[in-house]
Amino acid sequence: MSNIAQIIDQFKQEFELALAQEIKSEGSGSLLNAAHYSLMVGGKRIRPLLVKAAAQAVGVNNTSWLIPAVAIEMIHTYSLIHDDLPAMDDDDLRRGQATCHRQFGEALAILAGDGLQMKAISCIAEADRNLLSDVQKLQQISSLTKASGFSGMVAGQALDLDAEGKVLGLDEITNVHAKKTGALIVSAIEMGCYCQPNVSEDVLDKGRKFGQTIGLAFQVIDDILDIESSTEVLGKPQGADIEHKKSTFPALMGLAEAKVYAQKLYMESLEQLKGWPGDTTALKSIAEFVLSRNH
Amino acid sequence: MSNIAQIIDQFKQEFELALAQEIKSEGSGSLLNAAHYSLMVGGKRIRPLLVKAAAQAVGVNNTSWLIPAVAIEMIHTYSLIHDDLPAMDDDDLRRGQATCHRQFGEALAILAGDGLQMKAISCIAEADRNLLSDVQKLQQISSLTKASGFSGMVAGQALDLDAEGKVLGLDEITNVHAKKTGALIVSAIEMGCYCQPNVSEDVLDKGRKFGQTIGLAFQVIDDILDIESSTEVLGKPQGADIEHKKSTFPALMGLAEAKVYAQKLYMESLEQLKGWPGDTTALKSIAEFVLSRNH
Repeated sequence: MSNIAQIIDQFKQEFELALAQEIKSEGSGSLLNAAHYSLMVGGKRIRPLLVKAAAQAVGVNNTSWLIPAVAIEMIHTYSLIHDDLPAMDDDDLRRGQATCHRQFGEALAILAGDGLQMKAISCIAEADRNLLSDVQKLQQISSLTKASGFSGMVAGQALDLDAEGKVLGLDEITNVHAKKTGALIVSAIEMGCYCQPNVSEDVLDKGRKFGQTIGLAFQVIDDILDIESSTEVLGKPQGADIEHKKSTFPALMGLAEAKVYAQKLYMESLEQLKGWPGDTTALKSIAEFVLSRNH
Repeated sequence: MSNIAQIIDQFKQEFELALAQEIKSEGSGSLLNAAHYSLMVGGKRIRPLLVKAAAQAVGVNNTSWLIPAVAIEMIHTYSLIHDDLPAMDDDDLRRGQATCHRQFGEALAILAGDGLQMKAISCIAEADRNLLSDVQKLQQISSLTKASGFSGMVAGQALDLDAEGKVLGLDEITNVHAKKTGALIVSAIEMGCYCQPNVSEDVLDKGRKFGQTIGLAFQVIDDILDIESSTEVLGKPQGADIEHKKSTFPALMGLAEAKVYAQKLYMESLEQLKGWPGDTTALKSIAEFVLSRNH
């Protein structure tokens, strides 16, 4: 098993326990079943892992990153649930399994997504004060709500919808992805950094740039995989971008050039990891993984 | 003009300016137009008015209630946008105007609702520290996210959907409404109280009971108006409850008994307003208004 595969595997075990516990603490019923189902369908848990890795990179040595990690995965999961809805991308499959609305109906899927948003925030607000001070909780909440709101993720989704059937330029698709997926990845890094009470602005700034570059690389690779991978490996229909006539990096730059671009972004991301007070090994491994993943 | 009509009218002027300003600060575009449209369609602004009235009742004499009031109206508005969606109540009209998805399409309506949730929270997190301390911001955020999440509003909406076509008992519909609409009304009172840094547990407790009783009274009156009012006055189709075979208080208790029940709840709510440190006039007027409103 490679280094990153081991990191992800180990991380998933501790993280998914905490994630399941947080949602179970809300009680039971069909709405919570729907939320639990989508949270537990799996995925690589990259965003919460980034929170932990960034916390390690600023020298955090307790579990203060865990609740912020749970919160960002809840936000990511809600966004997938709503994104899959018939009125949005109308997807039947997510990670090889039925999407939330296919399994529980549209109404519950909408509500489960709404509930996850609020739960993500209340988790942070209620986190153990010995792990996160009030100032830190508000830093976490500000970062997460801005990244997922009108200046971040939902704005990106609206731009993405608006772009359907149109041919976008490189600047335009870079902007769409910076908002749609990049903002939340940057927030994951910020949230990890904020687990250290006195993190410097310099480190925060490098962290944000690291997040921007790997976020963009992630998307370039996603576009490449849509061409080169298979439905089985991806867990979602291969070739969907071409079928939906989406503007992608390979379509705009050519496949070979897109691969070079991803490599360049990877090198840029590593540049940002110099001079951190803690251990940046995990952040480096994640950057490498983003580049080398096959699904 | 009656006392409460004057209070509401005056309040709307100052409040709606702040509300519009907060959403405009996010920029422009079709997504923000959709959010702005639904925020500005109007309504009685009862929840934000409750925040201000509760703040006055605990002796607050600055504008620290304004951002929490904006936040709760954003949460209320998002819930209406999502509730009106085809997969939910499938309503074409809201306050006499086209619902958000009828005006902007389903996808933008879903995203506008999502964005409003995050904006509501970030407003509070970013509020002026001279008006709300970090402790107070977290109290506000905890109250609002719990009231609108899995143990509050969205749970109530899920129960309400589940109840369609079923005959519920009094305890059951009371529980649905306590979650679906009551929780946010209780939160409005809590948020107002938390504008006072050292509000007592005793006052908070009375405030919550006040919120519960007027919340329930509000729903009983809503059910009565669905029978006795007209589509023009209501701004939504009269008789919709009967058409959808909804379990209502008049259906379960009889119309006359439901009116007596609303009056009893009103008296109980006034009981809770004894011994507050500030001016409870506005809270009393709102309780009276809930009982006497015709739409």
